[in-house]
This record gives sequence, structure tokens and C-alpha cells, in this order.
Amino acid sequence: MSIYVLRLGHRPARDKRVTTHLMLAARAFGASGALYTGTRDQSLEETVRKVRSDWGGSFSVEYAEDWRRTIREWKRRGKVVHLTMYGIPLQRTIQAIRGNLSEKLVVVGGAKVPGEVYGLADWNVAVTSQPHSEVSALAVFLHELFEGRELERAFDGARLRVIPQERGKRVEASKPV
Amino acid sequence: MSIYVLRLGHRPARDKRVTTHLMLAARAFGASGALYTGTRDQSLEETVRKVRSDWGGSFSVEYAEDWRRTIREWKRRGKVVHLTMYGIPLQRTIQAIRGNLSEKLVVVGGAKVPGEVYGLADWNVAVTSQPHSEVSALAVFLHELFEGRELERAFDGARLRVIPQERGKRVEASKPV
Repeated sequence: MSIYVLRLGHRPARDKRVTTHLMLAARAFGASGALYTGTRDQSLEETVRKVRSDWGGSFSVEYAEDWRRTIREWKRRGKVVHLTMYGIPLQRTIQAIRGNLSEKLVVVGGAKVPGEVYGLADWNVAVTSQPHSEVSALAVFLHELFEGRELERAFDGARLRVIPQERGKRVEASKPV
Repeated sequence: MSIYVLRLGHRPARDKRVTTHLMLAARAFGASGALYTGTRDQSLEETVRKVRSDWGGSFSVEYAEDWRRTIREWKRRGKVVHLTMYGIPLQRTIQAIRGNLSEKLVVVGGAKVPGEVYGLADWNVAVTSQPHSEVSALAVFLHELFEGRELERAFDGARLRVIPQERGKRVEASKPV
């Protein structure tokens, strides 16, 4: 089951770090790639691609001009989940979402989410009904969707690899080819 | 079991949004409060207190001058968990941490984490060994620590309350006293 993330309304000056964290969390918790709308941001894309080339895997990042078209096209291919604190609690929706084996687009809001997004989504899911962060909402959603198996995921072709330690840091670097 | 979060090395200009997201995630996923070191930031504190007064509960936020003293004092009161991608994977440590019923301080790095933190921590825990975000690492850690029960948590004295909807938004506001 491939999962992609769509970040709405990226503003480079204000959102660069949060969107970077969001995309890296998407990658670390098992999504296959991210799309974003708003303003194109080459440095965001470079940061994410650099992490991929250092730490492995095939996570993709792509700018999308038009959220409405992106979501509509996606609905022909799979299902759409919208993460929002106003939706139905995760613990009441996750089984149905897990049980549906089609590819999924997980839509994550930016500053102002157009009302139409709530109507286009197959599920509006609340990861708690409290204000917090799109980064935490996405990570806990993916962690529940993959039932923790994403924590064991290997990232192929990594140049760097952490060797877990009780104290301190150990990173193994593969020799350049 | 009370859980507090210590954010190291906050820099107001650069970190305001990420630290705000981190503290709100701490609150939403069941921590009792947050401390932070680095530069004091009144507007960060006000944002978090405003969320508390609107959305309820008793989450505290406090500036701490000196991380070394804060961690050392905490070690007389409970245990210290340090979240770092270089630590032992969550899935191998969480049972021991859950089984220990003392209060816990969850230390979350900023820009540069001093090596001494790894030695002071009772557990160095990796929420994946991949780079992502302190916000996602903290949320998934708390979600595992509380075994999902934090999703059902009620926040007392809330002025605003979400009424979950399949589509759209519904927020109930209590009348001012």
C-alpha cells in the first residue's frame, strides 16, 4: 500500500522548517513521497533529496500547481485521507482505512484549508481533537496505519547508517563507489 | 505517571514555530508540561498558555536557565529519557520505560545537543534511526508510552471543544462565566 502526502499552501519564508520536518517525517514513517502546493521552494526540495541520497530509500518530492486537480486525479487512483482536528478521531477510523488496500494520499493543511478539501476527502481524520502540529499528526497517523512496522523499515542504498548506541553516536558511512 | 518535556537550546528567531509545535504536541499527547532552555521567548509561552486557556487542561510551560542543573535535579525526582536518532530503537526500549512508574523528563534536542546529555539520560531512545523532526519523535514516543490512551484524554475547563464531524468543522464554545 503506497502512501503519498500532500502538503497544502507551502509558504517558503514562513513554513520552510515545518514543511521540511513534515516531509522528513513522511519519509521516516514509511510514506513513498510528498507533493506540495503553494509557492515552489527549490531549497526545500534539495534538503529532502539530500536526506534521501544520504540516508537511502526512494522518497520522492514534487511540486503540484493545483491542489484541486491533484486531489481529483488522485481519487481516480486511490483514496484520500485529510488530517484535521475537526474530523473523526483516529481510533475510530483507522481500522477502516487500514482495511482499504488502495493507494492513499494523506492531505495535510497549511495556513487555511479550503472547505472543499473536507468534501473531497474519503476520510477526515482527527489525530486528537486538540491543536498541535501537522508533523505530529502525520507521524502518529502513519505509525497507526502501518501498525508500528514502519519502525523496522530498511532504507536501501543509504550512504549513512546509524548503529544504535546506549550512549553517544555512531554512524557508519559506506565508501563512495 | 507525569511526563515533562525539556526542549534544549531554543532560539526565538529560528525555532519559534517548531518549538511551539513541539509544546502543543507534548500537551495533546498527554505530557503535563514543558521546560525549555536557550533564549527566553515570551511570545512562545503566551501562545502555549493561550492554547491551554482555550482548549483546557493544565499544561505548564517554564523557562529553565541551565539544562545541566535541570536534568540533574530531575534525576533526583524521576527518570530521564533523551530522544535521539542515535539511541536504541523505541520498539526495543519502550517496555522498560513503560514499566518504570517514576515521573519522567523527556529531553528533546535543539541545534547542538551536548554530549553530556547522552550520559545523563537513563535511556537514549531512537524513534527511527532516520532524520525527521523532534515534533514527530516526541508525539510517537508519547503515543507508545501511553499506549494510545492519550487519544481519549479529556481536557478539563476547555472554553472550546471540537465536535467531531465526517465533513467540515464544528466547535462548541462554552459561555463566558
